[in-house]
Amino acid sequence: MELELIGKFLEEHDCYTILTHKSPDGDTLGAGFGLCAYLREMGKKANVRNSDGFPERYHFLYEGYEPQEFEEKCVIAVDIADTALLGRELVRYAEPGAIDLCIDHHISNQHYAKESYVDGKASAACLILYRLFKQMARPISRIVAVCLYTGIATDTGCFKYENTTAEAHIAASELIGRDIGFAVINRKMFDIKSRGRIQAEKFAIENMEFVCGDKCSILVMTTAMMESCGIEPAEFEGMASIPLSVEGVEIGITVKQRHEDVYKLSVRTTEQLDASAFCKQFGGGGHIRAAGCELHGTLEEVRAQILEAVGRLGL
Amino acid sequence: MELELIGKFLEEHDCYTILTHKSPDGDTLGAGFGLCAYLREMGKKANVRNSDGFPERYHFLYEGYEPQEFEEKCVIAVDIADTALLGRELVRYAEPGAIDLCIDHHISNQHYAKESYVDGKASAACLILYRLFKQMARPISRIVAVCLYTGIATDTGCFKYENTTAEAHIAASELIGRDIGFAVINRKMFDIKSRGRIQAEKFAIENMEFVCGDKCSILVMTTAMMESCGIEPAEFEGMASIPLSVEGVEIGITVKQRHEDVYKLSVRTTEQLDASAFCKQFGGGGHIRAAGCELHGTLEEVRAQILEAVGRLGL
Repeated sequence: MELELIGKFLEEHDCYTILTHKSPDGDTLGAGFGLCAYLREMGKKANVRNSDGFPERYHFLYEGYEPQEFEEKCVIAVDIADTALLGRELVRYAEPGAIDLCIDHHISNQHYAKESYVDGKASAACLILYRLFKQMARPISRIVAVCLYTGIATDTGCFKYENTTAEAHIAASELIGRDIGFAVINRKMFDIKSRGRIQAEKFAIENMEFVCGDKCSILVMTTAMMESCGIEPAEFEGMASIPLSVEGVEIGITVKQRHEDVYKLSVRTTEQLDASAFCKQFGGGGHIRAAGCELHGTLEEVRAQILEAVGRLGL
Repeated sequence: MELELIGKFLEEHDCYTILTHKSPDGDTLGAGFGLCAYLREMGKKANVRNSDGFPERYHFLYEGYEPQEFEEKCVIAVDIADTALLGRELVRYAEPGAIDLCIDHHISNQHYAKESYVDGKASAACLILYRLFKQMARPISRIVAVCLYTGIATDTGCFKYENTTAEAHIAASELIGRDIGFAVINRKMFDIKSRGRIQAEKFAIENMEFVCGDKCSILVMTTAMMESCGIEPAEFEGMASIPLSVEGVEIGITVKQRHEDVYKLSVRTTEQLDASAFCKQFGGGGHIRAAGCELHGTLEEVRAQILEAVGRLGL
């Protein structure tokens, strides 16, 4: 569906349910609540839903939001590439024809909705909404600006990553003018860490090993190790970038125990190496700089397999 | 001096020495090498100088740069608020009349040069150069774009801090289109840490204390503590933001021993508290969110003074 037609679509329909993906992040929630606020400002009825609820961390996106009572007539999915990401609570929308419109920026989008607008080159789903709202007549309000800025900032690592486009910067240049307190948002999103998370990072620093003339860094996290240090398991999520953050490291590998004799590898590489190719030899895959795979065996056997594969890279 | 006149000034003069501030950062070096490259592209002779040399970390800004032989006829200072920041090697330029033009974004600029262009609201000195080059005829080359982007990104914490302006985003939107490899620059500037630095951060995590219902975090670094862990002293620089990065903390204080019975405090606060007022009572000062002061006495006496002052905040 063309962008101009989506504007028309929003004008013509009413009583919207907006779906966001499970384990919600700043982009899906920013897009969900941003679209919801914009629709309500248009005089429409709209609610946002998430299978896992709305995390406290993103409270500023839904401050003052209250669900409305109405009979749902139109369903829009934002930032959801696949119905598998709807989660348990929203599984009924996985039925064919249940979702009227999908707005997404994942190139891998499954085109499960009746109508889709997918731009794999957009930095964030929120950037697509920015584009949409700019060509609609209604101005972008402060709360909509808060939501869109948050989605764009979080999905680009605050304009740091390769997926940051000129359009993302131009959107930000306008949105920060809306008195949104962007520096406070960024502090919350990028600088603040829980005490458990800080302890988990200390654990990572203590347990990282360096091999191949320090060009490869490996962080092993077994269930026993994680349990013994008394840190919440959730705090060990998303640590895959730590081994590659060390100066001189070209391939960073985190090895996390899933079950007895089953280990999940997350591989990150600099410009010199292909993480996806590295994981492919173990039946995994992903992107060129970030990929994953699963290895079976005792920790010693898994370590030996990793060291052999790293050795073959000729670092 | 008006911006239009600076363009004229650059056209009319030749044989430039460009001065950058001691302990150089991305903005002073980006401005120095960016201006130098631009002048050389204009057919002028120009060199960049720094009292402390050019750090390896910023090598990509001066790749291919070679000093030229010429008799210096015009001196320009970039990102230097005060001649005290010239450093020992460039002290001769501190003489009145030695510097022809100063381009800076520090509100505290001392107006020591014959002509000055100071904009305290500009996110970076490099943003002023961007503005200048945009109104001059010559296009911005790739290497100039690399330099300007680096200065803007580093001085704004990659567009994260309050000093990020709409203009900074607009400049970035244009500069990233010049094939500058901005994501690689950002990784180098923001994500990569030396192994010594990582150990210093681990030291910080281990030594942070929490008081006042965990709303105040204090990190003490004595000379003995820093020496005993075998980490280079330089790795302990710039750790003042760590105590405030902990969730729930409203005032973060680092206490670093300078000499026997002399301690330097760096204070960082969230929106609720005034760091400058806190430091003023000890004869220090600074900005509302970041300030410093010096305390005298034994560590125990200094600790007691800090705890009393924190107690008075009524957290």
